[in-house]
Amino acid sequence: MGLLFFLDMAGTFFFAVSGAMVGVKKNMDLFGIIVLGTVTAIGGGTLREVLIGQFPPFVFRQDVYFYVAIIGSLFTYLFVEYLLRIKSIVLLADAVGLGTFVTIGVTRALSVDITATSAVILGTITAVAGGMIRDVLAGEIPFVLTRDFYAVSCILGGITYLALNSLQAPQNATMAVTTLLVIVLRVLAIRFGWKLPRPH
Amino acid sequence: MGLLFFLDMAGTFFFAVSGAMVGVKKNMDLFGIIVLGTVTAIGGGTLREVLIGQFPPFVFRQDVYFYVAIIGSLFTYLFVEYLLRIKSIVLLADAVGLGTFVTIGVTRALSVDITATSAVILGTITAVAGGMIRDVLAGEIPFVLTRDFYAVSCILGGITYLALNSLQAPQNATMAVTTLLVIVLRVLAIRFGWKLPRPH
Amino acid sequence: MGLLFFLDMAGTFFFAVSGAMVGVKKNMDLFGIIVLGTVTAIGGGTLREVLIGQFPPFVFRQDVYFYVAIIGSLFTYLFVEYLLRIKSIVLLADAVGLGTFVTIGVTRALSVDITATSAVILGTITAVAGGMIRDVLAGEIPFVLTRDFYAVSCILGGITYLALNSLQAPQNATMAVTTLLVIVLRVLAIRFGWKLPRPH
Repeated sequence: MGLLFFLDMAGTFFFAVSGAMVGVKKNMDLFGIIVLGTVTAIGGGTLREVLIGQFPPFVFRQDVYFYVAIIGSLFTYLFVEYLLRIKSIVLLADAVGLGTFVTIGVTRALSVDITATSAVILGTITAVAGGMIRDVLAGEIPFVLTRDFYAVSCILGGITYLALNSLQAPQNATMAVTTLLVIVLRVLAIRFGWKLPRPH
Repeated sequence: MGLLFFLDMAGTFFFAVSGAMVGVKKNMDLFGIIVLGTVTAIGGGTLREVLIGQFPPFVFRQDVYFYVAIIGSLFTYLFVEYLLRIKSIVLLADAVGLGTFVTIGVTRALSVDITATSAVILGTITAVAGGMIRDVLAGEIPFVLTRDFYAVSCILGGITYLALNSLQAPQNATMAVTTLLVIVLRVLAIRFGWKLPRPH
Repeated sequence: MGLLFFLDMAGTFFFAVSGAMVGVKKNMDLFGIIVLGTVTAIGGGTLREVLIGQFPPFVFRQDVYFYVAIIGSLFTYLFVEYLLRIKSIVLLADAVGLGTFVTIGVTRALSVDITATSAVILGTITAVAGGMIRDVLAGEIPFVLTRDFYAVSCILGGITYLALNSLQAPQNATMAVTTLLVIVLRVLAIRFGWKLPRPH
């Protein structure tokens, strides 16, 4: 769990950065910025735990998630100008978080008695629901519903996880491949501007 | 459960249609349209299961709900022009879903240790919360809070269910009467433009 | 529990008033006004119960919460003009609710196996989440994220609760001091216009 834990912390930090940046853009005060950062970082994982009935959710059992999210938010509050200048690094870090959260989400979902389709959906919820709550709190339509390929990377990652799982691949390999695949798809989607179709 | 299951599937399908139509109207991409359709179709029932502590919620134990919701959303994506032309049929189908969801919601709520008032509220939540989440995700004030008689039909249906229940009416008759009553009230409310009062 | 129960009811009533007033302002109908009042009054406590896995949440086990919230909403519907004229009394009553809800929230959170930081966060959620849901349903950015000192009073109250708790102060004294502190901080914040910093 060493590398996965490190990636989980990195994802939590950079998801908090993405949330806090929205708070700054919306002219929120320090409390609002921390709430937006924290909700973005832990909202998806917490929602997954509630939906599969795991109580108390992991964030309430170890403080590290809250502290990393709050530090990420404060960091953004202080250095937002700087973060805007290294936007492509922030996007890459966000992709790492996305891949990690999908992998953790599917793994946790499979620990309870649900269908394979549900595990893919819960992996995707783990990765994207925090950002959706962030956007709703900021008075915006969640960007994941209107733009590009963000959630599809998560769904494809989740399906790959389950395929490898049913082929009895070793757990570590399954998790590594899933995480990497989501990251690569996300980076390619940004690089080549992949988009989903819209009506007419 | 034969007829009730059929109505449940029909309700899921047409609630997904109503959600996906909002997604189309908001110029969302295919993923956004499927999310809005699915959330509208299963959001109310899932919220009810979480609120009464039934884990994992029914949608995660049988794939049929997700698949019917996704098919309803895809159908809308492909045939939205056509659906707009048969709007009164869509409204009628929505009313059938409303009645079925209230009945299922109250029945499930009564299976745990809660008050009668709570069962009526949870039946109503089952029927209207999916649409409320849809509207929030679309950046709109939930229409059920501002217009017509939609939720009142559900509340009256829920009260009728409990009245029949306390009179020891057979379960099947109670469920049939509740479902029909909500459908009839909804259709009458549309037909005659029933509205709730507002301040001043 | 005599005084705490009275304060809890008063808080529920005046939180419902604050929610219903937003519904009136947004030109909602009677159902919408009652939903906004009720969600404001019981949303935070219900969310806390779900997050710590206490099912069914307290509002579904005793009707008094729903009835007090609905009465507060109807009262607002009928006397909104009058309530607008005694706005400072309504604000004071809201402060009483805030303090009471923090105290109840921390107490309930400590009854399950979570960290101290989580208990403070869940106390704050109990006090502010209902108002956040109210604002989202009304199509607004939650005011607690953008203005003044509202949530900070709750956080300081929660920290005080835990400090007194770890000093083995008697439970009653801990609860009384926490409630009072939040009320006093809230009133001072309104009186002197305390605000949190914003970027630049």
